Amino acid sequence: MKSKVKIAQFGLGPIGMECLKWAASKPWVQVIGAIDIAPAKIGVDLGKLTGIKGLRGRSTVAAVDELEQKPDLIFHTAVSRFRPAYQQLEPIVKRGINVVSSCEELLFPNLSEPRLASKLDRVCRQCGARLVGTGVNPGFVMDFLPLCLATVSREIRAIHIQRVVNASTRREPLQRKIGSGLEPQEFERRFQAGQAGHAGLKESLALVAHGLGWQLSTIVESAKAVVAGRNIRTRYLQVRKGQTCGLHQRAEGKVDGQVRLTLDLKMFLDAKNEHDAIQIEGDPPLAVVIPGGVAGDQATVAALVNAAPRLLRTEPGLRLVTDLPLGTATE
Amino acid sequence: MKSKVKIAQFGLGPIGMECLKWAASKPWVQVIGAIDIAPAKIGVDLGKLTGIKGLRGRSTVAAVDELEQKPDLIFHTAVSRFRPAYQQLEPIVKRGINVVSSCEELLFPNLSEPRLASKLDRVCRQCGARLVGTGVNPGFVMDFLPLCLATVSREIRAIHIQRVVNASTRREPLQRKIGSGLEPQEFERRFQAGQAGHAGLKESLALVAHGLGWQLSTIVESAKAVVAGRNIRTRYLQVRKGQTCGLHQRAEGKVDGQVRLTLDLKMFLDAKNEHDAIQIEGDPPLAVVIPGGVAGDQATVAALVNAAPRLLRTEPGLRLVTDLPLGTATE
Repeated sequence: MKSKVKIAQFGLGPIGMECLKWAASKPWVQVIGAIDIAPAKIGVDLGKLTGIKGLRGRSTVAAVDELEQKPDLIFHTAVSRFRPAYQQLEPIVKRGINVVSSCEELLFPNLSEPRLASKLDRVCRQCGARLVGTGVNPGFVMDFLPLCLATVSREIRAIHIQRVVNASTRREPLQRKIGSGLEPQEFERRFQAGQAGHAGLKESLALVAHGLGWQLSTIVESAKAVVAGRNIRTRYLQVRKGQTCGLHQRAEGKVDGQVRLTLDLKMFLDAKNEHDAIQIEGDPPLAVVIPGGVAGDQATVAALVNAAPRLLRTEPGLRLVTDLPLGTATE
Repeated sequence: MKSKVKIAQFGLGPIGMECLKWAASKPWVQVIGAIDIAPAKIGVDLGKLTGIKGLRGRSTVAAVDELEQKPDLIFHTAVSRFRPAYQQLEPIVKRGINVVSSCEELLFPNLSEPRLASKLDRVCRQCGARLVGTGVNPGFVMDFLPLCLATVSREIRAIHIQRVVNASTRREPLQRKIGSGLEPQEFERRFQAGQAGHAGLKESLALVAHGLGWQLSTIVESAKAVVAGRNIRTRYLQVRKGQTCGLHQRAEGKVDGQVRLTLDLKMFLDAKNEHDAIQIEGDPPLAVVIPGGVAGDQATVAALVNAAPRLLRTEPGLRLVTDLPLGTATE
């Protein structure tokens, strides 16, 4: 890239902080500010917050129009649902600013909010902004990578994807969203109410179907609590034997009554045999294993920052991660 | 896709024939002809050649200007080297016809022939044609897939890629190009002379480096004969104990004197433990295994046909496979 890309960070949780720090270390990036809506995080000196000298003197602000300069691109790591993300992102893309977002529903926004998705796409095109939702899951293991493998198979009958994640090594918000410490029925009630569980599984499934050109007749999603067989203590919380220590969440997609896509996610404390696996039933059949799995939090930050130069090579609009070209010299 | 894509096949060897047959089975394809330069293959009825009824009445021709209609896209499966491919492809792209080619050096044509690559790119842009070189190896296992994985890692220090292929299950031209039946010194002499071995390994390496934005200071390629420990008989040929039954070929790429990319390919008769493996030394580190490997010949045909709708979504020019978007409804 010839001139530096001016970056601002929207959202200063664990992922947002890492994203900001790593972006700041890139030779092609100039960090120009950070945004958070939490009153406690506004007006904080960025240099102190991150420990990076070059960022000293810039304070975090509450909204995009309070930034000293207009950024070229914003990393948005604030919410999982598309509807609240829309409220935050529309004023940004209206200024012609590009966005890479970790919002899970933005991976395939047509699924939850087709009307809002069209509207956001139209605003992006009118204002010359590009916007994409990505990450590791959703954004890579259960959607982008399977579609990458599908490019070398034909007559694909079905794709099955499994992921086993040891949540003990992960950040606090993740340990909480999988229901740790809840009674199993309470977890399942909250999952049904959309208040617990992994966001974006249906979006991964919809993106794979879209990429293959499959018209899904049904998407069924379910989750069961994984029950602790003994007391568990992590850095952040305690779970007693018999309480929820994580989840087993599944999404199935049918085409003409046949199950052709299954996404199976186990994410619980002290899970053994962490791995990701993808099977493609096609010609040739393919089976891919990632022993140990793709380590979530570092990989999410990598996915977001690496997506920026890829996004900037596309046409303005609301993009899918599968629209972005690969290899674009992100070092 | 709204209207059908008119396709012609250039090259009627084993891969070309499969490509033609599979393309003919696609609802979005209309096959309008086939081209081969071998006199014995010209004037042959396509329906008889392929056994596909709908193709009856069309004869294979010797050159693109003898086709009854102008195709939208040509699958080119004729040569490994870019220089002879250029001679075949320039008249095609000059007519504004798009090309997906299996020519190994076309994966990254800047490596062998930067001047010709610029020229071909210019012709493509002037005439509104898109051209890409792809396949499974090169085109996927040792280049596209590693770059796909690299999108979720950061601070990448090195990438190592291994591939073990059992050549006994493969087509005759492949069994011959790996030196089967030659004395080991004779194989190594032919490899040095560019007359034997796997084409495209250096191109895979160069494409990975390009995608990561790494400036390679050196590329070193070597090959040793794998010597048969006993007599081997395949469907096509015989190898005596002590003769060559395949190859162990390696390419290494250095950046500032450090080896940062290694591509290691073992392809020999009766090889056990077929697999593909990729290790990324980065944050997070990643290790991916494809037990059994990506089955070469079927996967190559899939890679070529699946690339067509992806290529048609890009701007005119000489493209890299990493420039093509993923998921584009290839069913």
